[in-house]
Amino acid sequence: MNKLIYLDNAATTYPKPEIVYTTMDKVLREECVNAGRGSYKLARKANTLIEDTRKLLLELINSKAKNEKVIFTPSATIAINQVLRGIEWEKINNVYVSPFEHNAIMRTLHSLSKLNDFNIHIIPFDNLTFELKDADLKVMFAKNTPDMIVLSHISNVTGYILPIKQCHDLAEKYNPINIVDCAQSLGIVPVDITEELSMCDFIIFAGHKSLYGPLGVAGFICLNSNINLKEIITGGTGSDSTNLEMPQDGEKRYEVGSYNIYAIAGLNAALRWINNTDIKEIFKHEKRLSEILVQELKSINGIEVYVPSNLANHIGVVAFNIEGYKASEVGTILDDEFNVCVRTGHHCAPYVAAFLEGMAKYGTIRASIGYFTNENDIRIFIDSVSEL
Amino acid sequence: MNKLIYLDNAATTYPKPEIVYTTMDKVLREECVNAGRGSYKLARKANTLIEDTRKLLLELINSKAKNEKVIFTPSATIAINQVLRGIEWEKINNVYVSPFEHNAIMRTLHSLSKLNDFNIHIIPFDNLTFELKDADLKVMFAKNTPDMIVLSHISNVTGYILPIKQCHDLAEKYNPINIVDCAQSLGIVPVDITEELSMCDFIIFAGHKSLYGPLGVAGFICLNSNINLKEIITGGTGSDSTNLEMPQDGEKRYEVGSYNIYAIAGLNAALRWINNTDIKEIFKHEKRLSEILVQELKSINGIEVYVPSNLANHIGVVAFNIEGYKASEVGTILDDEFNVCVRTGHHCAPYVAAFLEGMAKYGTIRASIGYFTNENDIRIFIDSVSEL
Repeated sequence: MNKLIYLDNAATTYPKPEIVYTTMDKVLREECVNAGRGSYKLARKANTLIEDTRKLLLELINSKAKNEKVIFTPSATIAINQVLRGIEWEKINNVYVSPFEHNAIMRTLHSLSKLNDFNIHIIPFDNLTFELKDADLKVMFAKNTPDMIVLSHISNVTGYILPIKQCHDLAEKYNPINIVDCAQSLGIVPVDITEELSMCDFIIFAGHKSLYGPLGVAGFICLNSNINLKEIITGGTGSDSTNLEMPQDGEKRYEVGSYNIYAIAGLNAALRWINNTDIKEIFKHEKRLSEILVQELKSINGIEVYVPSNLANHIGVVAFNIEGYKASEVGTILDDEFNVCVRTGHHCAPYVAAFLEGMAKYGTIRASIGYFTNENDIRIFIDSVSEL
Repeated sequence: MNKLIYLDNAATTYPKPEIVYTTMDKVLREECVNAGRGSYKLARKANTLIEDTRKLLLELINSKAKNEKVIFTPSATIAINQVLRGIEWEKINNVYVSPFEHNAIMRTLHSLSKLNDFNIHIIPFDNLTFELKDADLKVMFAKNTPDMIVLSHISNVTGYILPIKQCHDLAEKYNPINIVDCAQSLGIVPVDITEELSMCDFIIFAGHKSLYGPLGVAGFICLNSNINLKEIITGGTGSDSTNLEMPQDGEKRYEVGSYNIYAIAGLNAALRWINNTDIKEIFKHEKRLSEILVQELKSINGIEVYVPSNLANHIGVVAFNIEGYKASEVGTILDDEFNVCVRTGHHCAPYVAAFLEGMAKYGTIRASIGYFTNENDIRIFIDSVSEL
């Protein structure tokens, strides 16, 4: 059997850059103490590392101002819950989402809709071309003015790079809260708060996905200092301990309990690796392999590939189905007979099934590449699929 | 300057057993994929590791039944929030806590008290001997019948081992929900659900403290299958993705998003290390060093040590003050001049200050030992303190 071909990078990028492993092992062994400004040297060193990691993230989104805040959470799911559950829902009547959103968004909005009186609208996209139906959206916005828009930057199922700016532009006059889930994009495509994301209020990031860091560190970046989120998790902050109220502002309001310092160190190393490798090179590599993958899959008879018509808006993740097979059957065969790791099913994105005809019943097979995928991996994968 | 003397094990145990480091590095490099039952071999292997770790934790608390559930969370703070915010508060009028509780408990109860109509009562302990005032508590319970009791098993400030069973016995006829925070105890003292904790409904654990595992993995153990907690964090669970409701039961209801598989692997290794080392040996070692530490500190003029009169109820953590110094001053000198790491302040425990006279204003110095602390470390520490 061939070597392991890992094509589940949309779930978690694997492997990570070597420097992530060595940094984590070093910090675990030598510096893994509880961070604290007023404490001993090692604790202060941990603190410096945290602040440095915030700075690297702000640089990555092209932050120029001083008032953007990076908040670390243990997972992007918790970051999304913190942002969505932290909002003042009294003021929100209409929430718009794309059909590509993840259950971290959709189940949380669904849960909040039981407690608050708002409507969830699905932004219209053409289900063949994936193009935004902007005229329709304009009408929808006029009829039910948007108070919040939540968009994935890149779909975790289809690899579609969503037209963030186009949606935000159409909504601009209604001044909604704009949340962009960059779990699959930050570190690969430009997440630029002076351009494509210039109207964004909150960016969600996941350390272990497109940022090539470890599991256990994620967060959100608040770009609008006028929105003060309620805290949803309460606990110790290592300061003002006799006060039962959480800090009223600053990162500590949301960063509760002990910092996961070796995970943050891993993310720090990953961010430096992205800088050294150059994000444009990472993009170029993943883009090239994505193109080969799409082209080759499309050339096989009986395979339906779910990608946007304009492949300029696509990277990294390819969803497809094979005539005559359930997605899960293909996954099992690829694993058992070819040592190829893909995901099958609905990929935690509840509305994509309804959006993409053909996957509705059994979901799709999803192959997702990373910077450490090479052309030979893609060839082996294509050969395996062809043999089915 | 002498080598680093780390006496902040109550914040996080450091170092960890070597096997924790090597296991984590191995899993990070070779197996760190997203867990999933129906997926490829590596994902199923991750799943097996998770289930095995639950089993080891259940064995550690002497579980005999089949209906106890281990839920993993990224931190003990999140576990506490999940349990406390998940409770049906409509039925709760009186919550009892010890004066030793951490802000993960106290700030969360405080926050919940703004939304729900209940009273928080402090269980009376003698502030010189630390003995439970059981007659007084009996009267309190009769007057305001307990619906919930939250107790630390071991105080993170004073190392006091609380009389859990004695409190639960007094409350038994009122059938309260009993939550025990074992962040500082599980892995060191017996946490036995057939004995001391036989009336407990929820146990909180922190992987990175007395369990000698890494940061990033913690959780709660539900011992009462009749209590169904509301989910407080919503998101993807890798299954039933087109359903916007969270799973109605099972661990997945609370374990949202990607599992931190290398952290769970680290905890798994730590649990095996505890079994191999023998928990009685760990206890014996920490107990012996605690005794030396208390005895030596007490013998120095001008030092006040805050420990229970009956030292059988004490382990690991020693809080003290030195006449003429603020706690923070001592911390700085120990760090700068002696390379000794201790914590100073209130240690995220808001009521201990009011309980222990003398520490009210500036908090205490806290020296906390671990299995890898040795007698020589204690001697150097005592010499350093003596030189002040």
